[in-house]
Amino acid sequence: MSDVNIRLLAKELKLSIGTVSKALKDSYEISVETKKRVSELAKQLNYHPNPYASSLRRKKSNTIAVVLPEVADSFFSLAIKGVESVAQSKGYHVLIYLTYESYYKEVTILDDFKNGRVDGVLMSISSETITTKHIEELDLQKIPIVFFDRAIYEFEAAKVVTNDFESGYVAAEHLINSGCEHLAYLSINKNLSINNKRIQGYLQATTDHKIHDSNCTIIDCTNDVKENYNIISYYLKNTSKPIGIIASVEKLITPVYLLSKNLNMSIPEKLKVISFSNLQTAEILQPALTTITQPAFEIGKAAAVILFKALEKPNYNYHEESVVIPSIMHIRESTKM
Amino acid sequence: MSDVNIRLLAKELKLSIGTVSKALKDSYEISVETKKRVSELAKQLNYHPNPYASSLRRKKSNTIAVVLPEVADSFFSLAIKGVESVAQSKGYHVLIYLTYESYYKEVTILDDFKNGRVDGVLMSISSETITTKHIEELDLQKIPIVFFDRAIYEFEAAKVVTNDFESGYVAAEHLINSGCEHLAYLSINKNLSINNKRIQGYLQATTDHKIHDSNCTIIDCTNDVKENYNIISYYLKNTSKPIGIIASVEKLITPVYLLSKNLNMSIPEKLKVISFSNLQTAEILQPALTTITQPAFEIGKAAAVILFKALEKPNYNYHEESVVIPSIMHIRESTKM
Repeated sequence: MSDVNIRLLAKELKLSIGTVSKALKDSYEISVETKKRVSELAKQLNYHPNPYASSLRRKKSNTIAVVLPEVADSFFSLAIKGVESVAQSKGYHVLIYLTYESYYKEVTILDDFKNGRVDGVLMSISSETITTKHIEELDLQKIPIVFFDRAIYEFEAAKVVTNDFESGYVAAEHLINSGCEHLAYLSINKNLSINNKRIQGYLQATTDHKIHDSNCTIIDCTNDVKENYNIISYYLKNTSKPIGIIASVEKLITPVYLLSKNLNMSIPEKLKVISFSNLQTAEILQPALTTITQPAFEIGKAAAVILFKALEKPNYNYHEESVVIPSIMHIRESTKM
Repeated sequence: MSDVNIRLLAKELKLSIGTVSKALKDSYEISVETKKRVSELAKQLNYHPNPYASSLRRKKSNTIAVVLPEVADSFFSLAIKGVESVAQSKGYHVLIYLTYESYYKEVTILDDFKNGRVDGVLMSISSETITTKHIEELDLQKIPIVFFDRAIYEFEAAKVVTNDFESGYVAAEHLINSGCEHLAYLSINKNLSINNKRIQGYLQATTDHKIHDSNCTIIDCTNDVKENYNIISYYLKNTSKPIGIIASVEKLITPVYLLSKNLNMSIPEKLKVISFSNLQTAEILQPALTTITQPAFEIGKAAAVILFKALEKPNYNYHEESVVIPSIMHIRESTKM
């Protein structure tokens, strides 16, 4: 690190330390001419104000954190773009932290925020998270948190989510209307409230359409590709047609399509498939995949807007904010009659 | 932020300030019993040592940054996992910064690192980056940087890359051996050294196999999906068969597959396709897609290993490190004879 400091700059420029310090902070009290002289010499001497020292004074990092379970899912990479679209216009850095669905990692990350490393947090909780003490603790430190997609409901917190119950309902109803008599919901991360809401919607639709309980399955999948292949294979081999499948996340689509080929159960004739997904490749799968597409970019953007309002207006009660942006079903060949 | 401080802790516990401070830092000079007393009261009073203040003393943030152009590509999300696998075992946080291929954003991000916000940087440069002054400046601050995948060659810097020239060669040769007489390389981000190396490999293979220059095209694609559709459509409509296409990034596959359907040019009969990609869905496309798969996880991991060695051994000349991890071709139906 450079050992040039403000004192030296002041001496060289024959200015007071206070003047140099204010010039470096772009204070309105200092003339444009003086600011120019200071910044030119600072640049020449390779001097950078120490952010830690100045953070001690102003307690502002000009960064926000996005805490996510993963980035491999197209939903999250689009949501980050939405966040960035707001942060960029505010001159803020966006830091992305990944929990990989680990509660322990989430606790460690939030612990790291407690002393002003970031000004605010956007968060989608991990699937392991069932207690919220670590979140409440951060909230007590007056660091604003806004949840997006995967929110918490244990205490009042700002959130931007999509209509998961309705989406589960719509997906199931579409399969039933397409002639499916046996339905299976491929579940993953069963602690997650979004997953549970989709399941509730799915079950409500089957009840409303008088599908017998024994013909509505919920299949617990894992994060292991081969294991999922075997689990779904077992179901398909032991169920009479016509079958309709709802994949709760896009990565469960790969085993379903592979099985359709390997078990000779062509889509959509013998097997109809719909997935929650933002994958661009959905339309080039053979057959093209019917999807429930979440408004990922818009969710990230709306959450960031609330966060910046909280940062800019100290008296704004952001905790009460709760926004729902609906998902859209794109019907393609994989669910054709 | 809590106003409880070390002084208060010391008073409450009837210990010296120095003892409390050392206990909080887990010093070997302090007994386990005392450490336990200090940490219990600190927890009870919701006290957290200020990281900025302590960073001023120890100049260590226990975080590393990963600077990336995007996360929507499966390569980068896998590479991050590789980095994380090393950082986690070292007890480090991984911060992800996205440049969205913007040189300006890259400069701003690196500028933010100059004063110890992170201990080290892993980086894949943006496609706009053609000058490296911002990187040299960071290097002068003694913050170790290791490049992965997209490296720089303007000055000596540690790098972990794959064999892009050979991969371009192998892809072209495979298409030629499969009977293609007209070849097109779908290029994007033409400033990037990795892209240029793939192109050189591609052209070398066509020269070695005596394909006439006029039958080897390089098509400049953009980041706009519709525009790419039109550009590739123009080429396909104006070229006699049999055509072989190399997609330099996975997102260019969607327009190619859509065009194959819309122009009635079935893959692999009338059009053979190979793509640089780590997409899991490659095998469920119809037909399954032949890919050049980069060792994304391994590249991220190897880069992190070099970075931590640089952080742990001050005299280690990491600048000289240059690792090449080869890519692998997975032959599937899209290039069948």
